[in-house]
Amino acid sequence: MVSHEHVVSVRWGQCDPAGIVFYPRFFEWFDQSTEALFTVVGLPWPALFATYRVSGVSIVEAGARFTAPVRYGDGARIRSTIVEVRDKTFRVEHEVSVNGARCATGFEMRAWIALPDTPGGRLRSAPFPAEVAARLKGEARP
Amino acid sequence: MVSHEHVVSVRWGQCDPAGIVFYPRFFEWFDQSTEALFTVVGLPWPALFATYRVSGVSIVEAGARFTAPVRYGDGARIRSTIVEVRDKTFRVEHEVSVNGARCATGFEMRAWIALPDTPGGRLRSAPFPAEVAARLKGEARP
Amino acid sequence: MVSHEHVVSVRWGQCDPAGIVFYPRFFEWFDQSTEALFTVVGLPWPALFATYRVSGVSIVEAGARFTAPVRYGDGARIRSTIVEVRDKTFRVEHEVSVNGARCATGFEMRAWIALPDTPGGRLRSAPFPAEVAARLKGEARP
Amino acid sequence: MVSHEHVVSVRWGQCDPAGIVFYPRFFEWFDQSTEALFTVVGLPWPALFATYRVSGVSIVEAGARFTAPVRYGDGARIRSTIVEVRDKTFRVEHEVSVNGARCATGFEMRAWIALPDTPGGRLRSAPFPAEVAARLKGEARP
Repeated sequence: MVSHEHVVSVRWGQCDPAGIVFYPRFFEWFDQSTEALFTVVGLPWPALFATYRVSGVSIVEAGARFTAPVRYGDGARIRSTIVEVRDKTFRVEHEVSVNGARCATGFEMRAWIALPDTPGGRLRSAPFPAEVAARLKGEARP
Repeated sequence: MVSHEHVVSVRWGQCDPAGIVFYPRFFEWFDQSTEALFTVVGLPWPALFATYRVSGVSIVEAGARFTAPVRYGDGARIRSTIVEVRDKTFRVEHEVSVNGARCATGFEMRAWIALPDTPGGRLRSAPFPAEVAARLKGEARP
Repeated sequence: MVSHEHVVSVRWGQCDPAGIVFYPRFFEWFDQSTEALFTVVGLPWPALFATYRVSGVSIVEAGARFTAPVRYGDGARIRSTIVEVRDKTFRVEHEVSVNGARCATGFEMRAWIALPDTPGGRLRSAPFPAEVAARLKGEARP
Repeated sequence: MVSHEHVVSVRWGQCDPAGIVFYPRFFEWFDQSTEALFTVVGLPWPALFATYRVSGVSIVEAGARFTAPVRYGDGARIRSTIVEVRDKTFRVEHEVSVNGARCATGFEMRAWIALPDTPGGRLRSAPFPAEVAARLKGEARP
């Protein structure tokens, strides 16, 4: 399975008056981590979207459980893993920990969205190109 | 059930290069809507937190399904309803629609978090005071 | 002179661990207020950018002085005024106050940016169309 | 002079529908860079604020000139330098460049803000402790 781990320093501006990370910021981390996963498998988004004429890998569903606060000054380790690749969607799971203690777990399900053929046309999910699917599954390497 | 509805104008800075709302912004809307619900029942957060010596109504779990994009320039109607009030937690459900078409649904589960007795002490969930619980259930009015 | 005033409720997620508004949020307010000014004169951005084939009214310069903190729970009044319209740029001044006391002043200078003729071409400032300039100067009404 | 340089990858969620960085995000970078400068001189904010009983190094004034857009996918190099340390304030200058080309310059002036002696008391700027001033001036090393 394709996985990626990185540590983010919790920023002053990401914390609320209780001194802990404002929860929507976790989803910003999830988004960044998913983007990082694509880079890891050799499919950086800016190039990918242009090459395949997609408008993005749009979010279909997202969720998180928060078990311990992440505080200002913490180094938060985010481990993200692609756990499933279907025809048109994939699922990433994220785990956030500080000093080895788990603080939150979450997931994203995203779809491959082709650009409409005509300007202003409807966005529509489409099957992953074979090469993209293989890389997300860890079956092909960059 | 306590419910609240408001319309937000989608801002330029909330949209991504695909011209649609960046998904963590939905959770910012959820947070604002939940805060608005408390104001509606006469428990505005800034006063509430000071009165009851709580550090906040912390997020325990959150999730959303995204069924249609919300675009720059849209007026997004957010309808939020407290669907369950337990001893120490409550659940809010959110629905986001544009021109009557549903674009996303989501939820938050939050806990009542008492300030620690000693500085730096551990945050701990606590039962809602009776008055607060009654208002969140719609059994008492401001 | 074209002017606009609105009140924003300071949100939990806009405040930092000191309990005051994180300063980049003021610039988000400025951006929103400038967009609101265009709406007031009958030039809402989503329609405007499509009609005139511009990519936006891009920021050239921005600045602010912060004289008193804006706190969580405050209602911040933002008064914005177009003080100068030149050939290709305009200047907006913003004032943020709480309960009649001034907390911050700021400005933005922005340019009219035409879409490049060829995809990927360079962005380039261009003169305002006469109708747009007249409205920004308050000489023509919607 | 104390200086620090780091590269940030421009994130999808930091870019607007024009595909470029939404300008308030530059001020978030400035804030992070100023915090990084303190870490470089051995005064990380979380420890510093607790040690000296300050509520932060509050913004007094900030500004930026934007000369070229920073785009999604760019690696933006941010170079920050403390150019002046006065009795109660200091000034940081920031330069943002992509591939060696300057895209924006900015500055922050910030003050040392002591915690009020009584809860709810007024925030008040105070002189820097000698050790802090020496480090910001680059005269003392961690």
